Amino acid sequence: MSHSDASKSSQHVPSVPAAQAVHHESRNASNSAGYLLPTLHALASSGSRPNLTLLDVGAGSGTISVTLAQAVAPCGGTVVATDVNPGILPRAQAIADAAGVTNLTFQQADALSLPFPDGSFDVVHCHQVLTHIKAPWDALREMVRVAKPGGVVAAREGDMVTEAVWPPLPGLLRFHDLAAAAMRSYGGSNTAGRELLSWALKAGVERERIGYSVGTWSYSSKEERQVWARGMRQQLQEGRLRTAGLEKGLATEADMEEMDKAWEEWEERDDAMLAMMSGEILIQK
Amino acid sequence: MSHSDASKSSQHVPSVPAAQAVHHESRNASNSAGYLLPTLHALASSGSRPNLTLLDVGAGSGTISVTLAQAVAPCGGTVVATDVNPGILPRAQAIADAAGVTNLTFQQADALSLPFPDGSFDVVHCHQVLTHIKAPWDALREMVRVAKPGGVVAAREGDMVTEAVWPPLPGLLRFHDLAAAAMRSYGGSNTAGRELLSWALKAGVERERIGYSVGTWSYSSKEERQVWARGMRQQLQEGRLRTAGLEKGLATEADMEEMDKAWEEWEERDDAMLAMMSGEILIQK
Repeated sequence: MSHSDASKSSQHVPSVPAAQAVHHESRNASNSAGYLLPTLHALASSGSRPNLTLLDVGAGSGTISVTLAQAVAPCGGTVVATDVNPGILPRAQAIADAAGVTNLTFQQADALSLPFPDGSFDVVHCHQVLTHIKAPWDALREMVRVAKPGGVVAAREGDMVTEAVWPPLPGLLRFHDLAAAAMRSYGGSNTAGRELLSWALKAGVERERIGYSVGTWSYSSKEERQVWARGMRQQLQEGRLRTAGLEKGLATEADMEEMDKAWEEWEERDDAMLAMMSGEILIQK
Repeated sequence: MSHSDASKSSQHVPSVPAAQAVHHESRNASNSAGYLLPTLHALASSGSRPNLTLLDVGAGSGTISVTLAQAVAPCGGTVVATDVNPGILPRAQAIADAAGVTNLTFQQADALSLPFPDGSFDVVHCHQVLTHIKAPWDALREMVRVAKPGGVVAAREGDMVTEAVWPPLPGLLRFHDLAAAAMRSYGGSNTAGRELLSWALKAGVERERIGYSVGTWSYSSKEERQVWARGMRQQLQEGRLRTAGLEKGLATEADMEEMDKAWEEWEERDDAMLAMMSGEILIQK
């Protein structure tokens, strides 16, 4: 996984992010929204959409939003990025400031009730958001609602069950199961990637208007292993996965330690890899 | 999955292929060796490799070989394609003839004992071959042996366990398990994609010389579903999967019928998708 833009910019912002944030902040338009870029460039450069507007739903710390904003800036485009959690917005703003991006604003919003009139944006995008929502088709319906006629709705969601890891250390296999169980315990889906197309149909979109593709994330070089392993270890040591795992009885302290040691070993091994598929949809409104 | 080149050419050859062959013959360099193409073009156009030679190991009916031959033709390159099964070679030759490709020759050869001197080829390639071999690192060692110093060895192998399918019809889940069991019963691996990097290390290649990536195959449009479903149904009705499944007691006649009906339903459903990851390595010799 390439993560040049985001990692560079995150070095200039005041608060040094925790390991999991480093992993999340390695996301950018190129590695996480590649399926959207040709369409985005075509819209931005066609002249038919002067001052293109893009809404990035559930943007988190906004590293993808920043690179989407950079992609539409040359044609006068602007981006609005939202997150349901207002606590993340200062961090996102700091990342945008550090990158010198000025055509991007952040605001708190619930994906299930977007505070925008019908037909507000040329492009509506989300990444790894629907997988956390109990009725993801309702969020998709909202995204379609706020898109302009002739605009595009784009979503990319991981499919945790497809995660492949080598070597098959027992602690890694246990981690795979724990992460899936934790996702389900929150009401999310661990098979979002394969279900995404069915969710769009359930949101009332016609099949002819949906393009479906599948992308991957993979980690195997030394640098990639370092980013991924440290992110996973941080989740086990102090992150939400630890809290959920212990509170809901999905894992014990000893399990946490075994999984932590497994990621430590994985990071050091030359034969190590991890990959996961994501489903991708492009809806033509 | 795009399969324009191969399907076009296969319409001109004398024997109309069975459904599974249609699926196999939808493979081409673009959809099955995309990770190799930038390197191949760089080698072919650099002038440092005049009359580039490429060996395609385990080429089957040769649709990938044909498109690789087309890719290197403008720079005077030639391709030798092998398969362990001599029965497939006339079909491969017919496909090459129909495509008007003349810089490609076919010959029978065992991947574990390639009939070429050390350092014979600039590029040595295989696709979905090592997954069928009990000691795949021995085949990789052979491929490295016959590559020239400064040349490239490329391999792409599927990872069946990562196969994701929607909707989760019982017959499709049973098929997923049957296909994996049949592969293992032949001594093959159903996790080749994730193990490929470890196999290259086991073949004696240094980690620094190996690039590892992950690609996908996915099927969801009406045309894609038709190609895939008919290929799978043919395997259940008269293919090797049927023979293996019944002979080895992995499935009954009734199971075969249930799976066949599930693929029939899958082909008709708008929400249907199937995807699988493949591991890819590029070795710099």
